Amino acid sequence: MLEAALAHRAAHLPSAPSHAESEGVIPFNSGHAYPGILPDLTRAAERALTIHRAETLQYGPRPGIPELREWISTYMQEDGANVSPQEILVVNGAKQGLDLLCRLYTDQGNSIAVTAPTYFTAIPIFRSYGLNFIEVGQDEEGLDVAMLSEQLAERRRQGLKAPKFIYDIPDFHNPTGANTSRRRREALIDLATRERIPIIEDSPYRKVRFEGESEPSFKALDREGIVFTLGTFSKLMAPGIRIGWISGAQAMLARMAQLKADGGTCPLTQRIIVEFCKEGGLAPHLERVRETYGLHRDHMVAALRRELPEAAFTVPQGGYYLWLRFPAETDTDVLARRAQEAGVTVIAGSRFFADGEVRYPRNQGSPKNYMRLAYSHAGPSEIDEGVRRLAVSYRSLR
Amino acid sequence: MLEAALAHRAAHLPSAPSHAESEGVIPFNSGHAYPGILPDLTRAAERALTIHRAETLQYGPRPGIPELREWISTYMQEDGANVSPQEILVVNGAKQGLDLLCRLYTDQGNSIAVTAPTYFTAIPIFRSYGLNFIEVGQDEEGLDVAMLSEQLAERRRQGLKAPKFIYDIPDFHNPTGANTSRRRREALIDLATRERIPIIEDSPYRKVRFEGESEPSFKALDREGIVFTLGTFSKLMAPGIRIGWISGAQAMLARMAQLKADGGTCPLTQRIIVEFCKEGGLAPHLERVRETYGLHRDHMVAALRRELPEAAFTVPQGGYYLWLRFPAETDTDVLARRAQEAGVTVIAGSRFFADGEVRYPRNQGSPKNYMRLAYSHAGPSEIDEGVRRLAVSYRSLR
Repeated sequence: MLEAALAHRAAHLPSAPSHAESEGVIPFNSGHAYPGILPDLTRAAERALTIHRAETLQYGPRPGIPELREWISTYMQEDGANVSPQEILVVNGAKQGLDLLCRLYTDQGNSIAVTAPTYFTAIPIFRSYGLNFIEVGQDEEGLDVAMLSEQLAERRRQGLKAPKFIYDIPDFHNPTGANTSRRRREALIDLATRERIPIIEDSPYRKVRFEGESEPSFKALDREGIVFTLGTFSKLMAPGIRIGWISGAQAMLARMAQLKADGGTCPLTQRIIVEFCKEGGLAPHLERVRETYGLHRDHMVAALRRELPEAAFTVPQGGYYLWLRFPAETDTDVLARRAQEAGVTVIAGSRFFADGEVRYPRNQGSPKNYMRLAYSHAGPSEIDEGVRRLAVSYRSLR
Repeated sequence: MLEAALAHRAAHLPSAPSHAESEGVIPFNSGHAYPGILPDLTRAAERALTIHRAETLQYGPRPGIPELREWISTYMQEDGANVSPQEILVVNGAKQGLDLLCRLYTDQGNSIAVTAPTYFTAIPIFRSYGLNFIEVGQDEEGLDVAMLSEQLAERRRQGLKAPKFIYDIPDFHNPTGANTSRRRREALIDLATRERIPIIEDSPYRKVRFEGESEPSFKALDREGIVFTLGTFSKLMAPGIRIGWISGAQAMLARMAQLKADGGTCPLTQRIIVEFCKEGGLAPHLERVRETYGLHRDHMVAALRRELPEAAFTVPQGGYYLWLRFPAETDTDVLARRAQEAGVTVIAGSRFFADGEVRYPRNQGSPKNYMRLAYSHAGPSEIDEGVRRLAVSYRSLR
């Protein structure tokens, strides 16, 4: 009896990809970690649950435990962003950060600017707040700032409001793998500062770099406090730890802390992270992460070139994903289903476009020509077999 | 520059009570656990982080890990509620459950029914959704169902909409300690079923019973699936574990799972709970909880009768709190500040009234005559000293 009245709620949200992979199915669909490099947190947990028991098993402070906020602040400072511990809010994964930013900054019917394509899990979060999308193109240098500038000017001419924020993933973009160039970063910060539009910098993959040098983060370039950076331990340590953070203006974080209806993020998992980092566990773990995923990427690139030369892609210098472009006649929604039947799960390109317009690369086909493959979760031999299955599925479309 | 435009957001939310108690200050203000009975979770955590590492350090399933949902389902079945694992959604503490129910069921300007007084942490959650309050009286038998029935009829006469839900804490109500009688429970279920209004049964304290017998839960009496029960391991095990659940109609839980923007509740802490329960840790821990808090209650009752006979109260059979009523001229907002200066923290009664109307006990003074004392956190000698400080503060008001 309670359901009928609520048919409009959340009904538009797609279900998340299945986490319980069926036996023998090769997972190219999700940003799970490779099981072989999940860290050993037993010593950190033991200390957390003995020495620190009075902290870890009580309610924790809303903004996060002080030592973790200090650690994150130092970590960001070493990366060029002058962020104090008071400018860090610990959250239950970066997605909760995104949710809180939506709650604080938006009302139903507002617009936000996103790249096309963009992170497919962010889209339903934005939709659940009734937001409209201003889709901005991107290329191998990242978000097309000139196009965004034109779109903002056009909206002004039409009497439309500026977007409430600009959402982007400048480091190893999900799904495209593009790493935003320095001049684009500077141009975007300049534009957003001039137009007084907050930027949400979603940055899970920044440290998962196999070669080349990082560009300064948006936060490092931010002079007027317009950037909120979302960080996460999912990619630094392990997804299951469910700890992320928002870095941004202190007054805004205080409001989001009030809206965080969880009684404070889990102090136990926060303390496990602090102890793991204090025992020197993070640096060698990150080394293993980079080495392992670098090998996975190389393996997938080689397998694709060998088995599926019809798929074009740019080799990313880091991150978790390859963004494949198939010939114009390909429908990757169909291909993804066919691949699933053949025992490999992938995400079709259409899932990554908020309103279905293709802006990346400009005028280059439809969302249905694209597909995201994750090389993080599956091991090398699974990658070979998964690409083979995908190639067979692709050929079966003809 | 971003702050001015947002001055209206979250500005009405009071800050949470400080968790970092100052040295020597005696905490009667919060529902923290007594540090002496925080459980030893080291063995459970070690198994979770070794044998179960591939589960605990990856993303978990949105509704919760299957074994925990099964455990909760059995736990509720043994308590008389016929709930399947599919009717359980694991959340980051019961407060996240309340937040999700508000997101699913309400729009700005809607009304909900709450007791007066009600749980003071729920009030800002409801306010953050722009909800209006229908305050319902209560007495020692619990929520005054006859009064609620009249209020609903009166709203209908005035052409006002029914409340979106009824929120109540039937077992050892926070703050009053009242345990709803069987006939009131049945009457409320009958009324809500007839009027088709969902009930949110917030039930953190049900197992913290020192004497007497439990009445059937709302969920056990629910014939038509109108009850959502919020459960939590905060009071069963430890607050820091940050795991709660919503039990209710499966289709509604599926929608709330979609709105849960946290990438799934932490699988590590869920698994620690499962392992702790499997090793037989819960029953003896709950025995210690009941014994310890029963002693704390007795100690506080004796100290109040000795030191502060001006404060009237009913002795609850369980839960964490005493609800004091001071003589009519007392302003507990002032008294709470005075007590804080004297080194004991309490929560003034006014914090527990959503709109400030006194409905409990009917026509018996103003919110400013009431005060909540928690006996959970402080130990016996601290309780003696804290009550002494409160009595001195009270006398200093004259």
